[in-house]
Formats: sequence, C-alpha cells, structure tokens
Amino acid sequence: MTRSQRTPHDGAGPAPGPGSPHPGARANGQASAAGSPLGLHRVLEPSGVLPQAAWRLDPRAAIWPDEVRIAVTRLNLDAASFRQLREAHDDKPDKIRAAVLEIVRTRGKMQNPVTGSGGMLTGTVEEAGPDSPLGLAAGDKIATLVSLSLTPLAITDGLARWDGRSEQVPCEGHAILFGRSIAAKLPDDLPAELALSVLDVCGAPALTHRVVASCGASQPVVAIIGAAGKSGSLAAAAAREAGAARIIGVVPHDAEAQLLREAGPQLVDEVVIADARNPVAVSRAIAAAGGPAHVTVVCVDVPGCEGGAILATAQGGTVIFFSMATSFTAAALGAEGVAADVTMLVGNGYVPGHAQLALDLIRARSAVRAIFQRRIDEHGSPNHGSPSQGE
Amino acid sequence: MTRSQRTPHDGAGPAPGPGSPHPGARANGQASAAGSPLGLHRVLEPSGVLPQAAWRLDPRAAIWPDEVRIAVTRLNLDAASFRQLREAHDDKPDKIRAAVLEIVRTRGKMQNPVTGSGGMLTGTVEEAGPDSPLGLAAGDKIATLVSLSLTPLAITDGLARWDGRSEQVPCEGHAILFGRSIAAKLPDDLPAELALSVLDVCGAPALTHRVVASCGASQPVVAIIGAAGKSGSLAAAAAREAGAARIIGVVPHDAEAQLLREAGPQLVDEVVIADARNPVAVSRAIAAAGGPAHVTVVCVDVPGCEGGAILATAQGGTVIFFSMATSFTAAALGAEGVAADVTMLVGNGYVPGHAQLALDLIRARSAVRAIFQRRIDEHGSPNHGSPSQGE
Repeated sequence: MTRSQRTPHDGAGPAPGPGSPHPGARANGQASAAGSPLGLHRVLEPSGVLPQAAWRLDPRAAIWPDEVRIAVTRLNLDAASFRQLREAHDDKPDKIRAAVLEIVRTRGKMQNPVTGSGGMLTGTVEEAGPDSPLGLAAGDKIATLVSLSLTPLAITDGLARWDGRSEQVPCEGHAILFGRSIAAKLPDDLPAELALSVLDVCGAPALTHRVVASCGASQPVVAIIGAAGKSGSLAAAAAREAGAARIIGVVPHDAEAQLLREAGPQLVDEVVIADARNPVAVSRAIAAAGGPAHVTVVCVDVPGCEGGAILATAQGGTVIFFSMATSFTAAALGAEGVAADVTMLVGNGYVPGHAQLALDLIRARSAVRAIFQRRIDEHGSPNHGSPSQGE
Repeated sequence: MTRSQRTPHDGAGPAPGPGSPHPGARANGQASAAGSPLGLHRVLEPSGVLPQAAWRLDPRAAIWPDEVRIAVTRLNLDAASFRQLREAHDDKPDKIRAAVLEIVRTRGKMQNPVTGSGGMLTGTVEEAGPDSPLGLAAGDKIATLVSLSLTPLAITDGLARWDGRSEQVPCEGHAILFGRSIAAKLPDDLPAELALSVLDVCGAPALTHRVVASCGASQPVVAIIGAAGKSGSLAAAAAREAGAARIIGVVPHDAEAQLLREAGPQLVDEVVIADARNPVAVSRAIAAAGGPAHVTVVCVDVPGCEGGAILATAQGGTVIFFSMATSFTAAALGAEGVAADVTMLVGNGYVPGHAQLALDLIRARSAVRAIFQRRIDEHGSPNHGSPSQGE
C-alpha cells in the first residue's frame, strides 16, 4: 500500500474515539479506502512500522473492507505479561486492572510495554468486511491466533467483571482482525477450554505433519523431545498421521514417561527418559530406541536443547525447533561444530489449516485428548501466550 | 561411545603433557582404543559434554585412529574474543600474549572464557589416523572450519612471534581434528588471505545453492539482503549457478549499490537500496524489483531483519537466516503475526562440499573476487570468528 492509498486520518493527528466512524466510512460502517492486509493503515505511531512494532494503533470500530470486527468476550493475557503486571503492582487487583485499562487506552492494543507480549482473545464476529479473506460471518464464535500485541482493541466495560487475579480477563469491547490476521472458529463439540488449549499450540502439529509427509515413502523415524506436553503430544499424533514409521518420545522423568505409556502406541512407539539439555544423553537414548531420527521436533521450553536435537538427527534429516527458548546461534554453531548436515527449521506458528488439523487430531485421538485434559485439570486454565508455540 | 570404550586416562587425573603418548598409544603414535568422532574422548571436564561445552580438553599429541594432528602455523582469533582480551588487558601486548597462553595451557583449547568464542587456525597436516574420514594426508596445508572453541590445541613457542596487536597470531604447536571436524585444504592458486576470507563464509553459498536448486524448474526469484558483503556476494553467485531466474540484491546505501552495479549482471539483476530493519521498506523495494522472492537470504549482521525478510518472501517460499544477529523468537512470532507461510531455515554453517563450492565460485566469478579483494584491502586481514557465518 502506498501512502496515497491511506485514508486522510492515517498517521495524522489523534485517533477518533472507538466507535466513531472515520470520515471515509460508508453508511454500513466500512471504510471506503483500501486497507493494508497487514494493518499498516491502523498504525498511528511511529508511522511505517508493522502493527506489532507500533507504539499505538487506531482501534476505531469502523472497519476497512478486508477487516473483521469482533465483540470481545475474554482476553487471555500472556503469562510473562501478567506476571510483570502483578509484580509491578504488588498483586493488587485494582491496580492491575487500572494498568491494563491504561495500556489499552493509550496504545489501542493490549501489549505490555515492559514484556512486549500480548496474549489472545475470544469473542463473536460482529461484522466481516466484504473483502475479508478469513471466511468469518457475523455470529461466529472465534479465538484469535495472532497476538494481542498487534490486534487493535478497545475496552468498554472498565473490566468490571475481572477480579485481577488471573490472566483470564472477562471483557467487553471490540477488536479488529486484518486481512492477514488468523482466527479460528471455536468448535461446538469441544469444551472451550480444551479448544483454546489446542489452538494455543496448533502450529506444531501442522508443521510436523508437513515435514514428515514430505519424507514420502521413506518411512521416517521421528523423535519428539517433550512428547508428553501439549505441543509435543499433538506433534506426535500429527507425525503418526503423516506416515512416521517409528515415533520416539523423549521426556525428562518417569512421571511424564508414565503419561506416554498410558497413552499407548496411539501416540509414540518408544518412550525414553533423558535430559534434553545433555546432547550425549539425548542422542544416545534416541539411538538406542531406534534412532537416529530423520525428523526431530523440539517442544520443551528450556534453553540448551539445540545440541541434543542436532546430534540425535541423521545426516540429511530435519530438526524443527518449536521451543521459544531456542537460541539461533546455538543451533547454527552447534550443527557446524559437529559437521551435522541437518536442515534446521524455525517453528513458524502459522501453517495454512493448522487450527483445523489440530482440532481434528484432538477429536480422533483419545490419548492426546487425555493428555490435554490432564494438563488442564492440573494447571487450571491454559495459558495463551504465544498462540502456537510449545509449552 | 560408552565409558568402557575410553582409554584409561580419559577424564581421570591430569592430562599427560602434549607430545607424551598415552598408555594406549601404538608404536606409530596412534591410540589403540576407539575414539568418538565428536571428540568426547578428549573431554576432561566436565565429563559427558561436547568438546565445545567442555571447560578442559586433552590436547595430547598422540592421535586416536580417526583423528588428524595439525602442525599449527597461525591462529585467527574471533573478533569478539580479541576485543575482550584487549580491553581486559589495557591493550598491553605482553599481557594479552600471556592471557592467550594461559587460556590454552589451562583449557587445552583457545576458547575465551568470557566470550565463549574461539576462531579458526591454519597449519600443515602432521599425521592422519588410518580411520580419519577427512581425506587429509601429511603435508597438506589446511584451514579448520570448526571453531577453535572445540579444537584441542597446545602451543610450544610461547607465541614469541606474535606482537599481540592483531587477531592474526603466528603460532607453533599442534592441534587435533576429530572424525567429524571440518577442514579445507588451502588451494595453491589463490592467495591465502583471499582463500581464508572465502572459507570464513562458505556455508552461505552452499546452503543457498541447495535451496535454490531444490526449486527445480520453477525459475525462482532470489533476494539477497546484504548482497555486497562477503557472504552475500557469494550467496548471489551460488544462487545464479543454481538456476535463479532473477536475483535482487538489497544494500543499505549508495556506496554498496555502486559496488554491486560495478559487478554487473554476473552477480545480481536488480540492485535496491533499503534499510533491512524496516519491514515495509524492504518488502516494497523487493516487490518493486520483481519480487516477492521465492528464496530470501539474510546476510547482514544487524538485529531486526527478520520481519522484512519474511514480508519480502512469497507464500510458500523460504527464508535463510545467515546473520548471527537473527532472533529466533522475532522470526517465529513475526511470521505468525502476518500469517506468512514461509519456511525459515537456521543457516547451518556446514553443508557437505561447502568449501570447494565457495572456492570454485571465487575462481569462476571475477565480480565476486573483486568484492572480496576490495573488502580485504579496506579492512586488512579478514576476521575469522565463526567460520561460515556472514559479515
């Protein structure tokens, strides 16, 4: 989009209040000028950056032709963000509530200025622009799969129903999805909490499925490091569906091994216990269980797992890093240091069809569903930090 | 390798002095017990970690059957390491020299304990074990392509010929290559400085070649961010050889653009000037030059280039990150935030045949050679920090 394509108000002067249609809006509340599918037209300052990098977005309710407006029902704050808010405000609910309101009022989005992180939200589609490619219609119940840190948001109820004690924030207001935003319809047949938990990590099974399927008829051995977690168990199920010949699940201790063993061969063929941070231990354990792996998937959010994953992978194989604790340099130099000819993928949280694939897996695989249910029961509500990175 | 396969002295007690054969050594100076291709048998403390992570290695001169011993002629200290040494020792050559000697004496390798980094070395093969897979023979002049931070090293001349003022360290002593180490023969037909400069970044052209070639007959558009640098110009030449239909070179300012224009269409088809840290600017510039790219290669070592590379790449395309300033989370979340279905590769510095490919490119492409020569003349000796990551 060139500057001339923007509406007159873009990046010039203060944003109109939420709900006030901008001058270019049609009678039906849609903007007449072409918007950017990336939401660049919603960036108020600094100009020219992407919405995630922006200090302030324009959360006006009137939508551009390719946008969708959501009536928000709940925010799920990112764990790092909520922790920071609690610590900065002495665990006092009133202060925490005021802080969130102030962030959203001044920034036009819920992006914690200290942590930079956001979270996700659920709500109901109020209006979908005629050019929106998201396939949503008014009345659809959805969860956003892009971060709150780039989602225009206005809150209208003062967060009166939030106790300030949990990252689950009941909320009234509206949010905007761009042409290239990602949202998933919440299914009718699954409890909302379970569905959210699945959508939270749905990038991992989708990319795992793609990589394993691309091995074709070669019957790959797949190792999942952190196989008893949410992203790990879904990745294992996806690997099975994509044609893995043998799936090796790596877990840190016996309690997690027991979880996998109870799941049975529906999930993994071999369960091994090893410290993912110990390259020699991990690679030996995987080799003893039928490795080396042709595809290794890292789903544990602890630093230092790069070397083990690389060593456990056959020459010519692939490592997919879903852990947000992955160090780019440790991976690059680690592979070089052992002359490992492995393809190393940054776990992109977006693969087309990722939400549907993950929800279908949880429906079809009772073993995976049992693992999710157990984690939900143990930890209370799932946390929705990064929408599709592993836990 | 299991513990029982180690020689009696491994990990037990102080290492014998360099040159003293260990008890398992044969008459020809080779160890009789099987070694680990990763060099685990040379790790003295802590036990069980990889040589790079070890505090202390065993630099004994007697080699295991799959090892190679090098008579060292020169160390090239990593830039970060040398800077730290200079600052810590007030730029005093005697103190810096003493510090390097002390590190090598106590650690059995030249790994700066503060920066963790090493460098590379050049030398002549003294002895190659009968089981070494490296294809080296006594008398070969070589450069190591694995880091000094994992290479057993002993210094015998007190660094008497080093003035302590440059990261180029004339040196006598020996170093050990493992079965999975990487070394390149120094060619007779190229100046040593040029060859080292090329070997320093040879991972980038090799992986670029592989990815572009895998696009098959689809005539890919390739964008090289940082195309006038060493790794960038070699990557461009490799993309051309692999069948790129159009190569777009991105540079930060006019002086670099001029360099590329002088190189002519041998290197890139289009030269664009854009700030790699500005996603909108980079993606628009590449689109205007014939993009989006099917393959985007990031070769500039400044932080914040992830978003631009992702946005400049077509859906279904590939981004290769060679910059060591790449942030894993910025890449993962950045792609997700704009629903970019792009494959993101961690630029592995090792691809089989990488040294030969890069040296052949520099021989065949006078335009690339001119860029290297210019950079060598400008900056003096090239720095050899990470052997194959971009500058």
